Amino acid sequence: DDLKKQQTVESSDPYALDPKRHPMLHTNSLKPFNAEPPPEILTDSYITPSAFFFKRNHLPVPQVDPASYQLVVEGLPGGVLKLSLEELKTKFPKHTVTATLQCAGNRRSEMNKVKQVKGLNWGLAAIGNATWSGAKLRDVLLAAGYGSDVAQWARHVQFEGLDKDVMGTAYGASIPVNKAVSEEGDVLLAYEMNGEELPADHGFPVRVVVPGTVGARNVKWLRKIIVSTDESSSHWQQNDYKGFSPGIDWDTVDYRSAPAIQELPIQSAITTPSDGAVVYRSAKEVTVKGYAWSGGGREVVRVDVSLDGGKTWQVAQLRGNEKGQGPEFSPPPGRAWAWKLWEVSAPLPPEVQELEIVCKAVDNSYNMQPDTISPIWNLRGVLSNAWHRVKVNIREDAVEE
Amino acid sequence: DDLKKQQTVESSDPYALDPKRHPMLHTNSLKPFNAEPPPEILTDSYITPSAFFFKRNHLPVPQVDPASYQLVVEGLPGGVLKLSLEELKTKFPKHTVTATLQCAGNRRSEMNKVKQVKGLNWGLAAIGNATWSGAKLRDVLLAAGYGSDVAQWARHVQFEGLDKDVMGTAYGASIPVNKAVSEEGDVLLAYEMNGEELPADHGFPVRVVVPGTVGARNVKWLRKIIVSTDESSSHWQQNDYKGFSPGIDWDTVDYRSAPAIQELPIQSAITTPSDGAVVYRSAKEVTVKGYAWSGGGREVVRVDVSLDGGKTWQVAQLRGNEKGQGPEFSPPPGRAWAWKLWEVSAPLPPEVQELEIVCKAVDNSYNMQPDTISPIWNLRGVLSNAWHRVKVNIREDAVEE
Ligand SMILES: [Mo]
Ligand SMILES: [Mo]
Repeated sequence: DDLKKQQTVESSDPYALDPKRHPMLHTNSLKPFNAEPPPEILTDSYITPSAFFFKRNHLPVPQVDPASYQLVVEGLPGGVLKLSLEELKTKFPKHTVTATLQCAGNRRSEMNKVKQVKGLNWGLAAIGNATWSGAKLRDVLLAAGYGSDVAQWARHVQFEGLDKDVMGTAYGASIPVNKAVSEEGDVLLAYEMNGEELPADHGFPVRVVVPGTVGARNVKWLRKIIVSTDESSSHWQQNDYKGFSPGIDWDTVDYRSAPAIQELPIQSAITTPSDGAVVYRSAKEVTVKGYAWSGGGREVVRVDVSLDGGKTWQVAQLRGNEKGQGPEFSPPPGRAWAWKLWEVSAPLPPEVQELEIVCKAVDNSYNMQPDTISPIWNLRGVLSNAWHRVKVNIREDAVEE
Repeated sequence: DDLKKQQTVESSDPYALDPKRHPMLHTNSLKPFNAEPPPEILTDSYITPSAFFFKRNHLPVPQVDPASYQLVVEGLPGGVLKLSLEELKTKFPKHTVTATLQCAGNRRSEMNKVKQVKGLNWGLAAIGNATWSGAKLRDVLLAAGYGSDVAQWARHVQFEGLDKDVMGTAYGASIPVNKAVSEEGDVLLAYEMNGEELPADHGFPVRVVVPGTVGARNVKWLRKIIVSTDESSSHWQQNDYKGFSPGIDWDTVDYRSAPAIQELPIQSAITTPSDGAVVYRSAKEVTVKGYAWSGGGREVVRVDVSLDGGKTWQVAQLRGNEKGQGPEFSPPPGRAWAWKLWEVSAPLPPEVQELEIVCKAVDNSYNMQPDTISPIWNLRGVLSNAWHRVKVNIREDAVEE
């Protein structure tokens, strides 16, 4: 009876079985579900609680029975390898990696203010930092027959999800094979997030976690892995998630002319105070908090903060993890997968009614964020990583309103 | 007699035996010799001729007898390994890599215009692209006893040059061990540049070539390689070649707070026309040329050019190598060591007397150059990679002056 009712609901609305979500999330789209937490929650803890981790679904959340789940590995000389969830968990060592994931569209709303773009109107919280546990993709590929002979011709590892559109087309993406098989790439077939089984919105029972790489390649509800000469032929690999010059519009865009986004560029944003916030003169100082992260395993080494719109700068305190700071706590070079939270407290400048607070981060390749949005504007509104700016009003306490 | 004369000269002037240089080079410092070619020469050929390749010497050029030269490898369990030049050439496979080298101070003169910095006043041509041949550092380290046991503790590979100051201190630098031993790192102990033996100014008989890494780590006149737990203790590793926030001055700088520059950020510059050049209205169009490069093996995927100071942009044609363009000619991911030259021809906009030409490049991690110089200004004037701008005057042909 219940099953029948469910199926009826399902046939009329493919999203009817989507999981419940936390009511504090800001919803950008309900079907498919896309939502982000209030920004200040991001800097409350180094690890983002799963409930507050941004949800970015392209399609309905698939209902997966873990007992009958099978992961399929194709394209290797040994033929097709099929793994049950139990086999994935027991046949391969379990690795845990703390990695930040960011949606390509994070901070798109700022680009929208320059000129309308196409895409969900993400604020600055389509990013989160979690602890992921699972088998190494490298280990599974080696067990499935990957070796030096395959390395001669293999160039990409493709992923397909169990999430499908009404035509039956599954979500898909791919990553370069060297990232997939590198010992230092740390690519996981994750079955846990923050020490618990993957939540439905984050890919239960198995997702790919590709540290340092755009969210879109971290395929959820993973069904199939294909070692190939080619990139995924999916819409999301070929005709989406690419960056273009600001002069390119929908009449002139040639998706073949740009590479698929993989590693993301240096990013930072202010989570508190929020734009338009009020601080009182009696507080004497203002505390600014935010996050900073760079793709490709590049470590954030500095965040500069300005209270005067970028004329003068001070250096923020970085918080990299729970263990401590300094070189002895640094991740191995090229494997800084997790963000740094940062904070700066500064005296309120006298005789100023408004602060324009700005942040910009630097990674260990000394890449910096661009100053302004217009020159990096692109028709799809991805890769929005200009300096983040918020305006704050200073109110004199004497004035009661 | 000749020898005696030489020694007398040498004792009075350690630079007396420096080699002859091409008269077209712009000299920034004579002793030690630091010079760069006219910018437009850089875009005349994909491979920079050795004579025009920027010279960046910290000390006098050492006189090295190739017959008695010995390369020393230290810090490995097998004890000290010594290699003659002949052994280096015959005991290890010869590899050839095309790699761009850039001085950390390239384009420092633009920072100097914002506020005085300390350092040689480099223009935009302290960069060059050459073909380097030699043994792989990886192969030499493996032969000298590097293995999984060493990998447990080794963190850095230090280099010492034969060039010494008056106190006898040699030039030194180091790189992370994973770059040194990685199969994909392509670090060479090079004995040839552009198909000929290394010129004296470029490190004869052997230099390190660390593709994707700042010039300063590409130690010339290589004498010693040391596998270590620590970075080089040299001045140039510890107290130079680091980037700081624009607010840091010589009273507040703490060199321990910033990482040694290794991989360089995305860079591009306009080689022609030059700033202040005149174009005639009758030419109808203007051709703009330049170079673009990114460190860490990241490939330049796009160069945007503006004629109106950054308000509107067009995409330049890229030239990656002599073979061709397109994905089939791309280097393997993460191993794009060489620059791209670029070019754009555009109609002269009517009713404008002056063009402000601007370029900015994008690499395959979608890192972009910062818009302006002030926010990346640093007391040592390194890492100057803001958009490059040149102003060009349009002259009406009717007016004879
Ligand atoms: Mo995304
Ligand atoms: Mo340099």
